Amino acid sequence: MGSLETTSPSSPLFNPLDLDDFRTQAHKAVDFIADYYASIESRPVLPRVDPGYLRKTLLPPTPPTKPTPLDSILSEIETHIMPGMTHWLSPNFFAYFPATVSTAGFLGEMLSSSFNWLASPAATELESIIMDWLASLLKLPQQFTFSGSGGGFLQGTTSEAILCTLVAARERAIEKSSSVIIQKLVVYVSDQTHSTFAKACKIAGISPSDIRTIPTSADTEFALSPELLKRQMEADVAAGLVPLYLCATVGTTSSNAVDPVGGLADVARDHGVWVHVDAAYAGSACICPEFRQYLDGVERMDSLSLSYLDCFCLWVHNRDSLISALATDPEYLKNRPSESGSVVDYKDWQVGLGRWFQALRLWMVFKMYGVMNLQSHIRSDVGLARMFEGPMRGDRRFEVVVPRWFGLVCFWLRGVGEGVNRRVLEEVNRTGRVYMTHTVVGEST
Amino acid sequence: MGSLETTSPSSPLFNPLDLDDFRTQAHKAVDFIADYYASIESRPVLPRVDPGYLRKTLLPPTPPTKPTPLDSILSEIETHIMPGMTHWLSPNFFAYFPATVSTAGFLGEMLSSSFNWLASPAATELESIIMDWLASLLKLPQQFTFSGSGGGFLQGTTSEAILCTLVAARERAIEKSSSVIIQKLVVYVSDQTHSTFAKACKIAGISPSDIRTIPTSADTEFALSPELLKRQMEADVAAGLVPLYLCATVGTTSSNAVDPVGGLADVARDHGVWVHVDAAYAGSACICPEFRQYLDGVERMDSLSLSYLDCFCLWVHNRDSLISALATDPEYLKNRPSESGSVVDYKDWQVGLGRWFQALRLWMVFKMYGVMNLQSHIRSDVGLARMFEGPMRGDRRFEVVVPRWFGLVCFWLRGVGEGVNRRVLEEVNRTGRVYMTHTVVGEST
Repeated sequence: MGSLETTSPSSPLFNPLDLDDFRTQAHKAVDFIADYYASIESRPVLPRVDPGYLRKTLLPPTPPTKPTPLDSILSEIETHIMPGMTHWLSPNFFAYFPATVSTAGFLGEMLSSSFNWLASPAATELESIIMDWLASLLKLPQQFTFSGSGGGFLQGTTSEAILCTLVAARERAIEKSSSVIIQKLVVYVSDQTHSTFAKACKIAGISPSDIRTIPTSADTEFALSPELLKRQMEADVAAGLVPLYLCATVGTTSSNAVDPVGGLADVARDHGVWVHVDAAYAGSACICPEFRQYLDGVERMDSLSLSYLDCFCLWVHNRDSLISALATDPEYLKNRPSESGSVVDYKDWQVGLGRWFQALRLWMVFKMYGVMNLQSHIRSDVGLARMFEGPMRGDRRFEVVVPRWFGLVCFWLRGVGEGVNRRVLEEVNRTGRVYMTHTVVGEST
Repeated sequence: MGSLETTSPSSPLFNPLDLDDFRTQAHKAVDFIADYYASIESRPVLPRVDPGYLRKTLLPPTPPTKPTPLDSILSEIETHIMPGMTHWLSPNFFAYFPATVSTAGFLGEMLSSSFNWLASPAATELESIIMDWLASLLKLPQQFTFSGSGGGFLQGTTSEAILCTLVAARERAIEKSSSVIIQKLVVYVSDQTHSTFAKACKIAGISPSDIRTIPTSADTEFALSPELLKRQMEADVAAGLVPLYLCATVGTTSSNAVDPVGGLADVARDHGVWVHVDAAYAGSACICPEFRQYLDGVERMDSLSLSYLDCFCLWVHNRDSLISALATDPEYLKNRPSESGSVVDYKDWQVGLGRWFQALRLWMVFKMYGVMNLQSHIRSDVGLARMFEGPMRGDRRFEVVVPRWFGLVCFWLRGVGEGVNRRVLEEVNRTGRVYMTHTVVGEST
């Protein structure tokens, strides 16, 4: 697809990038999207379809042989796709985490998907610059930037960030001593750590029985205790095992708990453990000085990941450990600048080989809005949560069950038990006028 | 970002999704992109910048505090980003593989990035339908579809497809027998297999010394020989090792060689080996009946991956083996349809948890163009390669060194040696009027 044909417009040849078509149809799609945004508040926030609805009634089992006009396609989206959508952009959506669509983000995505940026130095260089920008906003120590021993880049998902650093840690441990084999390696998380960690372990060949899940409780506000971690690590060493990797979390998915990064690092580093901070949810808030404290101690970490505007950012303290674990070097990919070591070659930092130009989206957002507005947007989101929390704390029917750290308020109906709370949530969500999600923290009563 | 504010337009609040802004700016970006397409042939196809150009001269070390108007941003893209771009869409670009941008693909991408489709049944259902559509076009056996034991889905990259199936194979082997440990597992490729395979092995904990790279030669047109594979597997079994996984390729990156899929499967299945076909490059051509023969034998494969219009498709024969290796199941992700097993839950098929709505792009392309045009586009691309190959075969100065199977012509200047060929290629590429890539096949002379 996509080679620009130079034949005349009257040619019967199929031209998938005819310029007149492109212009007309892309403008039409922009209006369709804007109209959707304008209508979003009036739509039920949750889909009201049965599983299998699309296959059962709406789509034929084989693809169409002939072209369909764009107008018909857009109306199929409206009638067939939209009813099966969760409208994250709706002002009535209060589940999971906030949507991250913005005009600037949309334009950045549009520009990046309209070209093939693969193998373009501009893409790599912009990404390394933007990651340094973001590092400076987050006040990360110099080691995490390209002027230090590390650097940042954009992964496909948080899971991939954890997987790649876990593999780097594993290779480092196995290379260090010939007596270390994969079956001896032990990794550490709290019972609040995101489930994606267990998957990354499986993929990297670490058995589920070698994951130490350390319990948390309301006493520590569901944060991982350095003391418990220390005891567990010592027990494992005494049993002849090798502590490998600790995944601490700043802003857990379940309750936004914040692990004490500095204290954990002290314990872990006594055992030569790779320490990763997963700040997928709360890391972006740390661009505001008043939230930056939650990353204190990050200078003693090996890696840090967070999600910013749908981009999954990873910084490492020592880029060489990542590169030596993930580099490959075949003939058809050789080129002079990479061979000379003068440029960053991100293919050696990740699972895949190709990559998208996501940095353009981040750059557009920084440019179009400026740091000032990005900070005020975080503050406004957190302010909304505070506004919701206030009356709830004053109302005896409700209980806010964990501290509100950022934009998440965890509450339930006091004294009626888990079953009633679940049923109320289901009823509320069924109205289509609001969507909230549930979790379980600590012992249910 | 992105919650739609309902305050009045005169409010001083920062609104990243103001509807008027969105409409005006998105239309402006569409025109910018169309103008770029119109100018592309006049641009040098390769970038002419030194490594570090962007950081050295053009961008400040910290992000801007205040907003920049869109017009200035677009002119920065023109003056700063464009010079560092490889223009894949240029008609003068003949390197790697063809660009896959089309109007329909662009619109699909635009629609999918303008919403947050996460957790929407429409996204999952459309993806499973489209993968069945594509399976029917490729005449894949029923086992690879959702009406059989398998199914298809979109991975982030080919590397991820290989990694996930490798992990599924590893888990299957280890579960089958308590005497099987990861250090005994051996995997098989040819010396033409993509380098990404070695990386997937590293990540999955398979040591480089357990990758058997079977040599190919001009005698087999650089295809993997079933006889050599058989001998190697038998030798490994005799040594107490466990053959695990074979990665066959249809259309190698270096020379488009086609491994004999059926013959390899016969050998591999004698040893209970997982057989994967990587058809990243050539698989899409198989939507034309005249190329489908290269997938003959696919019914005996465990998995098949290919790249279609920038989407990385993976089909598996037995979805349960993949899911049991990759599933995770925490409380906050529980929901009724998934628990009842009545729906596909793609998070259990891949490395990450979240996913993009890439299926919308494929659907838009199928709808807007129809299979007829998609087939004719493949034929036209292959026809162009044939048109280039003809005169070259008739000219004694050149030699076409391997058969042309699809859209790749591998040639060199006859009798002047590798050094001269490399220099000529560099000179040609330096003109900026064309861009071609090199490889090394067999012994250089």
